[in-house]
Amino acid sequence: METINDLVGYNNLKIFQNDDWFKFSLESILLPCFVNINNDAKLIMDLCTGNAPIPIVLSTMTDKKIVGVEIQKDIYELGVKSVNINNLEDQITLINDNLNNIMNYYDSDTFDIITCNPPYFKNINTSLKNNDPHKVIARHEVETNLEEIIKVSRKLLKNNGKLYLVHRVERFLEIIDKLKEANLMPKRCQFIYPKINSPANLVMIEATKNGKDSLIVEKPLIVHLENGNYTREVLDMFRRK
Amino acid sequence: METINDLVGYNNLKIFQNDDWFKFSLESILLPCFVNINNDAKLIMDLCTGNAPIPIVLSTMTDKKIVGVEIQKDIYELGVKSVNINNLEDQITLINDNLNNIMNYYDSDTFDIITCNPPYFKNINTSLKNNDPHKVIARHEVETNLEEIIKVSRKLLKNNGKLYLVHRVERFLEIIDKLKEANLMPKRCQFIYPKINSPANLVMIEATKNGKDSLIVEKPLIVHLENGNYTREVLDMFRRK
Repeated sequence: METINDLVGYNNLKIFQNDDWFKFSLESILLPCFVNINNDAKLIMDLCTGNAPIPIVLSTMTDKKIVGVEIQKDIYELGVKSVNINNLEDQITLINDNLNNIMNYYDSDTFDIITCNPPYFKNINTSLKNNDPHKVIARHEVETNLEEIIKVSRKLLKNNGKLYLVHRVERFLEIIDKLKEANLMPKRCQFIYPKINSPANLVMIEATKNGKDSLIVEKPLIVHLENGNYTREVLDMFRRK
Repeated sequence: METINDLVGYNNLKIFQNDDWFKFSLESILLPCFVNINNDAKLIMDLCTGNAPIPIVLSTMTDKKIVGVEIQKDIYELGVKSVNINNLEDQITLINDNLNNIMNYYDSDTFDIITCNPPYFKNINTSLKNNDPHKVIARHEVETNLEEIIKVSRKLLKNNGKLYLVHRVERFLEIIDKLKEANLMPKRCQFIYPKINSPANLVMIEATKNGKDSLIVEKPLIVHLENGNYTREVLDMFRRK
């Protein structure tokens, strides 16, 4: 069922969702808060944008132009409606296409920042047969995969431009290797722990095109208190600006 | 000045130190607490053992035999005195030699577990001239380095044996690469954050000889409260058993 929900409460931002297919995830709030937006930056790209939560959250932090790409038409349309109801049409442009076709829209070395909350799971056909295809495509590497996202990001980014990814910890070492192979050098990361006494389940990574090889591990990001409520830090992200 | 200090208070363990040269570090408590000692394990090796804090702490967790290797004679002798005063001579054997000579003492594929709190800093000669040589050797890669530690560990470990390292976060990606090159596959790591709002400065890594490539990032280890006191978790490590 299509619904309209608060995205970032304090700002009164709204987002259109469809419970049957696709709902924006917590990572769509956490990743923009991990992004450093340089004053010189002009253009931001969000790959696998879904119903556009990351561009909408980023709009609370910057007035730079933001482009989002989403392959699924239904979900793209939810994104367009979400952009429109928040009056963000001038800042956010959404494209409904495969990210491999993005070079039909933009020149290489064009973007200062790329964000991406990609499908997390490798495409293993057997487990997917009975699921809704919208969910499968958003969660599994059916229509795109890590290699493609990194390849496209490398093309689109300016020299010293930054790619921001959020992903499952299980794939951390694989991601680091693939980023380095593409000369997108990991500079910062932040591990996301569901609770203070839990192993990390997610990690956010900042990689710089043609940067140097070094890594800062930022303070731990703890999502929940022991009682299951969000931590103050995460609540502050919901209420930012 | 040579002193005798409490190592692990609750157990009444003692350690000989010399304030001018070398004092055991917090990592010597944290690393043993990160180690999983399998019931089948028979033999444990601690490389770069210093005055033997890691073997002594490990002795509170297991009755397996532990060998420590230390290149510096003065510091090795503090270790021997520390082992003796704790009546651990039957469990802990210390060797005063370069770790490259360790194959003169043991066959390859002999150890189940290797621990190492190695020198952290690359050997850059210019910065070291005026320092005490004991400290320089303990902290800088003068007498050994990461490559040698990994090479020796690979030889000494049994198949599926485990190497446990603690090191600076800045060198995390380099260590991961070198471990994988040696087919010591990173399986678990734990980032050590000085405070909950600080970036990690240290990381502990468990790597399995000929293991599979996967990585669990354990819960964050926070060392200090905001007021500078140790956290409950670290205090519990001091008081273990």
